[in-house]
Amino acid sequence: MANTPPETDLITREELQLAARNHGMPLEALRYPITPVGLHYLLVHYDIPAVDPAAWRLEVGGVVEKQLVLSLDEIKAMPAKSLAVTMECAGNGRAALLPRPINQPWILEAVGTGDWRGVSLRQVLELAIPLDQAREVVFTGLDHGLEGGIEQDYQRALTMDEAMRDEVMLAYDLNGSPLPPQHGFPLRLVVPGWYGMASVKWLTRIEVTREPFVGYQHVRSYRLRQHVDEPGVPVTRIVPRSLMVPPGFPDFMTRKRTIKRLPCRIEGRAWSGWGAITKVEVSADGGRTWAAAQLDTAAQSPWAWRGWSFEWSPPGPGDYELCSRATDETGKVQPLDVPWTTAGYSNNAVQRVKVNVLTA
Amino acid sequence: MANTPPETDLITREELQLAARNHGMPLEALRYPITPVGLHYLLVHYDIPAVDPAAWRLEVGGVVEKQLVLSLDEIKAMPAKSLAVTMECAGNGRAALLPRPINQPWILEAVGTGDWRGVSLRQVLELAIPLDQAREVVFTGLDHGLEGGIEQDYQRALTMDEAMRDEVMLAYDLNGSPLPPQHGFPLRLVVPGWYGMASVKWLTRIEVTREPFVGYQHVRSYRLRQHVDEPGVPVTRIVPRSLMVPPGFPDFMTRKRTIKRLPCRIEGRAWSGWGAITKVEVSADGGRTWAAAQLDTAAQSPWAWRGWSFEWSPPGPGDYELCSRATDETGKVQPLDVPWTTAGYSNNAVQRVKVNVLTA
Repeated sequence: MANTPPETDLITREELQLAARNHGMPLEALRYPITPVGLHYLLVHYDIPAVDPAAWRLEVGGVVEKQLVLSLDEIKAMPAKSLAVTMECAGNGRAALLPRPINQPWILEAVGTGDWRGVSLRQVLELAIPLDQAREVVFTGLDHGLEGGIEQDYQRALTMDEAMRDEVMLAYDLNGSPLPPQHGFPLRLVVPGWYGMASVKWLTRIEVTREPFVGYQHVRSYRLRQHVDEPGVPVTRIVPRSLMVPPGFPDFMTRKRTIKRLPCRIEGRAWSGWGAITKVEVSADGGRTWAAAQLDTAAQSPWAWRGWSFEWSPPGPGDYELCSRATDETGKVQPLDVPWTTAGYSNNAVQRVKVNVLTA
Repeated sequence: MANTPPETDLITREELQLAARNHGMPLEALRYPITPVGLHYLLVHYDIPAVDPAAWRLEVGGVVEKQLVLSLDEIKAMPAKSLAVTMECAGNGRAALLPRPINQPWILEAVGTGDWRGVSLRQVLELAIPLDQAREVVFTGLDHGLEGGIEQDYQRALTMDEAMRDEVMLAYDLNGSPLPPQHGFPLRLVVPGWYGMASVKWLTRIEVTREPFVGYQHVRSYRLRQHVDEPGVPVTRIVPRSLMVPPGFPDFMTRKRTIKRLPCRIEGRAWSGWGAITKVEVSADGGRTWAAAQLDTAAQSPWAWRGWSFEWSPPGPGDYELCSRATDETGKVQPLDVPWTTAGYSNNAVQRVKVNVLTA
């Protein structure tokens, strides 16, 4: 491979620096249908910006009939809606790849479900009246830094069609309170079904454009490539994943689980950005054989994860490797392994949880 | 050394597992006098327990005249007090040691200041009326796991004298809201001035004892040792530390800072569990020469960090290593280096922030 990720299981200092500042969701927090603030995953490319909400404005411009400059109060005066949305980092699962792409070393914790409240993006765009030649919408955040040698504000774009979808919103509340600083205060984009990179935080400008966006976070980053020199395929929607609350209790250092009470109810949640979850299966032998889990009656919204449970009675004491896998309505199924990519995006290989059952 | 920490700068998978679930405070959050929920550091030994607040009770027993069983409502009906408290993990700074103790690999982010609200521990103990032979108070949390081969509930103790101090509290609110699950819902101990291990979360039992506590978290863990076979010295109060908001903007991967605007105002906060901060100094040459920073007029409480600032005009463009160091009223000063210990506690060596100044 052209870049030289380490052929080792060990983690570099640069990866640790990222792991120390970006937060995963401890997997026992899968028990909450809405992830409490502080447990939702968090990936910040540069620094969390300091924003004075009184001075802050959202600009809407580009190929529109009416340039807009909106205050937070003006946005909050518009008709509001709430939506439970499961968000996942595109790099979730990256640390399982070998050789490992050097970047935020997520194991499996980069997920969370927020109860977001705000206004429809379409409603704001319709106030500005995009012109006929409008093709994409570029979103600029206030976080600023260097990445791949390029100084930049964090920017992502959506096609006009994606931007006008019902569920895409500009959110100012999370779980009933104003956005915490780390989740984009005072306003962020939320693009349900897409990996988190699309949901630009600390939003400051919306620009309607004639041309496809060619910024760093589209053309260089967030692409699936087998080789760094190829253009690759853009990362978009979340591929299906199921995770379980690790059953039993952990060892502090190894996190290996011990189960002393049987039968063992295994619980988890599953999601996909491509369609509703239709099946979750559980394996107690590392993925060789599977049995269907019980799906909860419904998810909290079409864009939120769905709970599941499974009553497990192991045949006897000993070591087991528990797995779960999700299938969505488009027929996408979680694989046991995914093909290696240069940046480790969209790795939805099944979770493996090692447990030691002490009683029969 | 008797244990064999790696003679390498690379991080093991077990350390990464801990770093992925325990949260540091991104250092730009030093800008907030009270750390927003979700940015405060978090160290959970086992799993975050699920607690039903209606069924939850706090037991108070041992060598007391009156055993107590208190509901959350009964505790909330008692006279309440609020206190801003800076809490730091005893392992903060551990990852800088070489050979590196294998444990949660904190760089410098394991700190935060909460606005805690609850009742005085003394008040609860006085309701139970400790007997004359009372010597220590043992606190048991609901988190359960294996550590060092020993299955345990997380437990820590205080001497009777420490337990009866004014500022020690049983907190049910953080920053004006009920404790989030990860910070000890529904009730936790807060021991101002001490490293975080003393502030037992998910409190379920308070036991007044005749004998000194010899549980795992006192006798095996949380001790300063040069060699694993020696008894060592208990970790108690927080030694002084100052941290700065890294100035300028970062590179995503290396986190190296670029400064383009001068003069550069450097801001930070300093704290000590031994006494008030009396001096903060800044160095722009990696700790060879120092100049005094301006201290903010006052900390929010005697147990909270104190802000400081420093107007820096570098002599010209180029690379600099910025440091700051704190001195407290007992004369304790942050060192450039600390002696190696087996578990890497209390490493308050000065922070070093590499910056590249682009303008003169």
